[in-house]
Amino acid sequence: MAIGAIDVIEAGTAFPSRRALHDARIHSPLQAGIAGGASVGAESIVLSGGYIDDEDYGDELIYTGHGGRDHTSGRQVADQEFTRQNQALVTSCLQGLPVRVIRGSGHQSAHSPSTGYRYDGLYWVDSYWKERGTHGFFVCRFRLVADPGLRGDVSERQIDGSGVPARRAETTILRVIRETYLGKRLKRMYDYRCQVCGTRLECQGGPYAEAAHIRPLGRPHDGPDRLENLLCLCPNHHVLFDKGALLIQDDFKLTDDVACLHVRRDHRIDQVHLQYHRSLWS
Amino acid sequence: MAIGAIDVIEAGTAFPSRRALHDARIHSPLQAGIAGGASVGAESIVLSGGYIDDEDYGDELIYTGHGGRDHTSGRQVADQEFTRQNQALVTSCLQGLPVRVIRGSGHQSAHSPSTGYRYDGLYWVDSYWKERGTHGFFVCRFRLVADPGLRGDVSERQIDGSGVPARRAETTILRVIRETYLGKRLKRMYDYRCQVCGTRLECQGGPYAEAAHIRPLGRPHDGPDRLENLLCLCPNHHVLFDKGALLIQDDFKLTDDVACLHVRRDHRIDQVHLQYHRSLWS
Repeated sequence: MAIGAIDVIEAGTAFPSRRALHDARIHSPLQAGIAGGASVGAESIVLSGGYIDDEDYGDELIYTGHGGRDHTSGRQVADQEFTRQNQALVTSCLQGLPVRVIRGSGHQSAHSPSTGYRYDGLYWVDSYWKERGTHGFFVCRFRLVADPGLRGDVSERQIDGSGVPARRAETTILRVIRETYLGKRLKRMYDYRCQVCGTRLECQGGPYAEAAHIRPLGRPHDGPDRLENLLCLCPNHHVLFDKGALLIQDDFKLTDDVACLHVRRDHRIDQVHLQYHRSLWS
Repeated sequence: MAIGAIDVIEAGTAFPSRRALHDARIHSPLQAGIAGGASVGAESIVLSGGYIDDEDYGDELIYTGHGGRDHTSGRQVADQEFTRQNQALVTSCLQGLPVRVIRGSGHQSAHSPSTGYRYDGLYWVDSYWKERGTHGFFVCRFRLVADPGLRGDVSERQIDGSGVPARRAETTILRVIRETYLGKRLKRMYDYRCQVCGTRLECQGGPYAEAAHIRPLGRPHDGPDRLENLLCLCPNHHVLFDKGALLIQDDFKLTDDVACLHVRRDHRIDQVHLQYHRSLWS
């Protein structure tokens, strides 16, 4: 088990075979596409063209989980679950662990090598969800984002309280919160109070809240940046909403079917987006 | 007032004078180093060597706020406060607004132009605090981080629920949560419960918590990545701690002097780091 970079092997290094990847400890299993365990997280993934639902944009990947395929035809014949190797990628997301990404020539994207395999460095798991795949069954999906500075040390030398240089801190990204101009407008409408719990974080210098897109921005969801797709949430409820623990019904009742989202009259929320969000966690 | 990029003016564009910066709307005031307002945020800053406490690492800046200087000698003769233009930079941080950065030849860093001024693109305000400056008075400090992809659209086209291409969403960064291996260990020690409120965010796929460095990692604080400098917090209390609304006394009593941080026996917290954190918000 090794999470993160392997010794001196740099991104871009070519390998002739799965055996060679195994020997270099870049990707240990000889067949499985995901290496790792549910509790420790994912070590590495191989993009080898096995799943037709994968999408490869180079620095951004929409990766399909493991399971539910017929061994002979390769067709999806059952739903995937967030268990075993799929859970490993969920754990990597929840804990901010980096994942090694390897592309194989069989992957057939513009970013694949022409022969063999190529180690393409570390990615972080930005989000995970479920959706109905091309063959009609639910598949687990993961958005991975490459970051060349992912494992960059935050400073050349870490100095401890006594002035003695300490070991350098290797940091990875756990979560990035993005903001749009409309998000700012929405937060003002709600006076920075969470629409779920009413919390207003009073910081030195002003209040703090986050604007959450119901149907996420960016690939593959491509949710719109419009008020009807936005919620004003405290960071805790933003995490719970993004990670599927907080679902909102069309009548704004929350997961427990008792509490209700606070919605201002001048804030029209589009039920279609709520339905999309719930569909990610069915 | 204009927040963000100005039309077609690209990072790297040279300007002969403050008047030229003004005419191009890159930096409107002819004298002040910070343009903007307390409620709308900071538009732009000029690094022109006025403050000896500024630190310039290129893509990362430690910027000193405005005020408290003797007009003749330029010496700091009084404490700075988070008001007016300094508050503008705080607002930019709390709301995730981008700030235009201009370097002048008077700035005398390795990153300054040899003559005139240069617009160096958009930065985001990563954090703010107070500290005792070189002349013995408190100064407001800001850590700004350049991000070439800061205003990159999250996708080429945003598609709304009806399939109609919508306007692109311009996103900025509001907050980045980084993780270290020790942080992960600490969160396991506390079973992902916040040391302030006991909250454990139960997400689909597992629990979520954040590890907060008491004395921050990275420049200029250079806090160590050690358990005695770490707290396990929920996202809400992490925000409050990082933004100075949650202070912890040496006996672990919290700001209100009633509630107390939960600390396990096997988690030794170094009071020196708590003192350092409090000193940032004195």
